[in-house]
Amino acid sequence: MPALDLRADPIDLTAALVDIPSVSHDEAAIADAVEIAIREQTSGFEVLRRGNRVLARTDRGKARRVVLAGHLDTVPIADNVPSRREKAGSDGDVLHGCGTVDMKSGDAVFLHLAATLDDPNCDLTLIFYDCEEIAAKYNGLGVIERELPQWLAGDVAILGEPTAGQIEAGCQGTLRVRLSTPGVRAHSARSWLGDNAIHKLGSVLQTLAAYQARRVDIDGCEYREGLSAVRIEGGVAGNVVPDVASVDVNFRFAPDRSVEQATDHVRQLFADEIASGAVTFEVTDSAAGALPGLGHPAAAALVAAAGGKFRAKYGWTDVSRFSALGIPAVNFGPGDPNLAHKRDERVPTSQITEVTDVLRRYLTA
Amino acid sequence: MPALDLRADPIDLTAALVDIPSVSHDEAAIADAVEIAIREQTSGFEVLRRGNRVLARTDRGKARRVVLAGHLDTVPIADNVPSRREKAGSDGDVLHGCGTVDMKSGDAVFLHLAATLDDPNCDLTLIFYDCEEIAAKYNGLGVIERELPQWLAGDVAILGEPTAGQIEAGCQGTLRVRLSTPGVRAHSARSWLGDNAIHKLGSVLQTLAAYQARRVDIDGCEYREGLSAVRIEGGVAGNVVPDVASVDVNFRFAPDRSVEQATDHVRQLFADEIASGAVTFEVTDSAAGALPGLGHPAAAALVAAAGGKFRAKYGWTDVSRFSALGIPAVNFGPGDPNLAHKRDERVPTSQITEVTDVLRRYLTA
Repeated sequence: MPALDLRADPIDLTAALVDIPSVSHDEAAIADAVEIAIREQTSGFEVLRRGNRVLARTDRGKARRVVLAGHLDTVPIADNVPSRREKAGSDGDVLHGCGTVDMKSGDAVFLHLAATLDDPNCDLTLIFYDCEEIAAKYNGLGVIERELPQWLAGDVAILGEPTAGQIEAGCQGTLRVRLSTPGVRAHSARSWLGDNAIHKLGSVLQTLAAYQARRVDIDGCEYREGLSAVRIEGGVAGNVVPDVASVDVNFRFAPDRSVEQATDHVRQLFADEIASGAVTFEVTDSAAGALPGLGHPAAAALVAAAGGKFRAKYGWTDVSRFSALGIPAVNFGPGDPNLAHKRDERVPTSQITEVTDVLRRYLTA
Repeated sequence: MPALDLRADPIDLTAALVDIPSVSHDEAAIADAVEIAIREQTSGFEVLRRGNRVLARTDRGKARRVVLAGHLDTVPIADNVPSRREKAGSDGDVLHGCGTVDMKSGDAVFLHLAATLDDPNCDLTLIFYDCEEIAAKYNGLGVIERELPQWLAGDVAILGEPTAGQIEAGCQGTLRVRLSTPGVRAHSARSWLGDNAIHKLGSVLQTLAAYQARRVDIDGCEYREGLSAVRIEGGVAGNVVPDVASVDVNFRFAPDRSVEQATDHVRQLFADEIASGAVTFEVTDSAAGALPGLGHPAAAALVAAAGGKFRAKYGWTDVSRFSALGIPAVNFGPGDPNLAHKRDERVPTSQITEVTDVLRRYLTA
């Protein structure tokens, strides 16, 4: 069992976490190490272990509670474990390895603070969970949401996902719809006897190509929407006029729209085709966005501690689970998200230090 | 070994042929029966057996030679063998079974005439072949074209494919092209960083939907062209702006265009998109059409024998193999082609009698 030293520099703690492989579904070793370290090296925490999820919280009767949450799993290792620290001149060092960005550096910051904050200004809840990098049904935070919802309570939640040390607030919603075009099958040598389903997708695609996506400011964050065909399919055989074709469209929408409003918006774009029966419209997937919620005092204080800088989060992330509970939630962690999941995943060590410092200020000011 | 009586009514001979199962690649039994019957029940024919192909020809020194060709194979049997003759009132009987239409009734007419024409006005070549109903590379007539091309020589070729007793002349050409749209992949949450390949297919589909297909008269046959998307494909994942998409287009063209001219015509429709680099254009498959060639005296005499009625053939058929050799070729046989390959495949017996009578007139007049 590798031991973790939570009081060590969080850079070294990141390296130690990276050196415990923890690909999704295989997080037992790292969960054991985290559980033992919290039990032995922190004080005042109630600790709960459930599967490969480790939960801990204080109950000091503080006026507010901050939730620090991070997933322990990584995508499959690509010859990039163990970690490797590279001296990189005046800008500081770089730590290489699977999870240095996504998101063992964020986990390390949270663990280090839990062990070293003498007198935090709030109660703390720590949530380390499994299976974030795979299908949503396995997501450990989702399991907690269903089985231990009281553990998610708090005034603000911080997910240590990589944001290059910038606060990213809220997240966009996502909607997937399938537009299908019924037709009539015929031999392509007598095409006039059929009604080509693929041809009817032309106007749908033209609408998508011409669509002007909205930009909207919410709580000082600019959200930029997008409407994209993500799959198209049709055809029966090389000599057949096809009677069915479909296109899947993904709408990423700002969190000032509900899923229902987003659905209505997309349906309206194709209202003529739907009304004429040329196109059928089916929602296949959706997830609500999350309002940034930066107006909440606990969130505003975090923004202040970070020097007032923040931006919108574009992708859908686990912050939505907190937002759905009415808890402001942000992503805030070291590492360039564009390097996540890459073979050359790496983090500037200075970002680990900076994020630690910001959170220390926020939790003790 | 079932024996065939070539002098029997061709309706009964059709039934006897249907009752010898001969799904593609499994034509040995029917080829044996046909070979033996020709050798024993006709006179003046040189007979050649090659695999499951049976060839026979006279050499009486006549001024012209007529080729009668038919395939012996069928699509898979669907509970419709043996044949079943149904009394159907004043319009005559109906013969049910796999191959009654496609094309053992045509084979039966040819075999019956070979055995019963006392003094034909021309030399005759009979070609019975295998594997017409499956991939072109197995086609028995193609094998003969490559290995025994001299056996295809003649002044006119008649394929006994089902035409409901109407002469169908020539055939359309077919061209398949793939239009692909290169793009740039991106996460759909940041779609503006990508270039959506599917969206770019919109203008291609609009062009196809708006295309006005040509109708053209050749030798009194009207050919009607068609341009059809037959397959469309694109997409990477549900959250990715795709960098590649493509549509396969099938152009069925009248035989006054060459393959090259047809290709140029289709390329021209998308000239703007190709020039701008939005679309790439690739020919994936082509086959020349066949001019009807009804101006040739041997073909004109057949039309006259059929009462002057004829029409264009739309699908690509083996007549093209003869046309490519400069031999006018037509399809002429009993049975509604729309019933071919169907579980309830069936032919009015009167059509078998009519086609026999027309060809007897033509070959003896």
